[in-house]
Amino acid sequence: MNPRSIVILGGTGDQGLGLALRFARAGRPVVIGSRKLERAVEAAEKVREAVPGADVVGLENVDATPRGPIVIVSVPFEHTASTVKSIKSALAEGQIVVSMAVPLAAAIGDGAVRTVGIWQGSCAELVAALLPPGVEVVSAFQNVSAHRLQHLAESVDCDVVVSGGSEPRKLVMGLCSLVPGLRAVDGGPLSNARIVEQLTALMIGLNVRYKVREGTGIRFTGLPER
Amino acid sequence: MNPRSIVILGGTGDQGLGLALRFARAGRPVVIGSRKLERAVEAAEKVREAVPGADVVGLENVDATPRGPIVIVSVPFEHTASTVKSIKSALAEGQIVVSMAVPLAAAIGDGAVRTVGIWQGSCAELVAALLPPGVEVVSAFQNVSAHRLQHLAESVDCDVVVSGGSEPRKLVMGLCSLVPGLRAVDGGPLSNARIVEQLTALMIGLNVRYKVREGTGIRFTGLPER
Repeated sequence: MNPRSIVILGGTGDQGLGLALRFARAGRPVVIGSRKLERAVEAAEKVREAVPGADVVGLENVDATPRGPIVIVSVPFEHTASTVKSIKSALAEGQIVVSMAVPLAAAIGDGAVRTVGIWQGSCAELVAALLPPGVEVVSAFQNVSAHRLQHLAESVDCDVVVSGGSEPRKLVMGLCSLVPGLRAVDGGPLSNARIVEQLTALMIGLNVRYKVREGTGIRFTGLPER
Repeated sequence: MNPRSIVILGGTGDQGLGLALRFARAGRPVVIGSRKLERAVEAAEKVREAVPGADVVGLENVDATPRGPIVIVSVPFEHTASTVKSIKSALAEGQIVVSMAVPLAAAIGDGAVRTVGIWQGSCAELVAALLPPGVEVVSAFQNVSAHRLQHLAESVDCDVVVSGGSEPRKLVMGLCSLVPGLRAVDGGPLSNARIVEQLTALMIGLNVRYKVREGTGIRFTGLPER
């Protein structure tokens, strides 16, 4: 394990790839995981094309998982539980899993401007319920536009509400400063993920009503300057 | 009924009084309602002190209700249903009721950084279920800091997500431009109120964690300029 590496499972999808590009651009080693090795390798190649000299590798999820202290799960909501179960045995005590999926009703064939209820309260708490003791879950990145992440020439202009236990939360907040325009906001306990996840559905509705193809973002006003 | 008047039930509370001050400052006639006449009269007097020449009157809720086309219900969540029931007979077809309460768990003796679930989906939809046909409900103003509303010297720096039927929603969006710094955001159907209401609990948590006594606000980024 390289302590500077950032693991992104589902790094082949729009938002995961966007984060991979940004973290690679910031000089961090990136490990892209996918269910299929060839798709992970392909995504890693895309990152190297966009970010010359990027330290990035593509692996199957279970092989990617042990490679860094923070494992971002960036798969669609409907694949989140199965993905987390599939990597459970590869996780070690002390690792942090980042939940960024949103329970959009698209998962059950309804629209993306609504959500389905999660018994545990949120996707992040569902992930927490599936993980072994000693592995902490942090909720983050749900409201960041995939399009804007991938468009490396511009900053992202979005706050990231980070929720979870106080120590792992701080570590994940630290990742946000790697991406120009992202600001980490201390979102308190993991249970607040339910609010942050819902917000994505509202923002998808805004994207539709205002025809914002690049995706809206969110900012909290009145917070003290750091 | 004066078509320019804005009725604020619970205009004696922090947030209702803040809106009354701002609307009066913008030159609109304001009708403050309260369960008790003397409290309404007192609040109206406060507005006149802060805004010389303000056209403001204080009345009992049931007498205030018919006085303007838009009736803002600004009472704590736990008094919302009873207030709406008490004014039902005073409402006429075509009036718009604005729901701005948030089902904070403080209503059941728990904290203000969490919410209770509402059977209908949100406080706004609860209000809609209680009203006679022909009276439309719009959700708005939940995320605007009472403190910043009352501080007339400064602009508020907050977006207001307005949800409801498309015609009444546009009318309520129009109110936002009366307050410097507020921007109306088209929040789509009334069911989205459930997301906007939850957001308030998250923002109250931010106020606590970041020690923002004046209250945080929210902005959506990436929306087209109007």
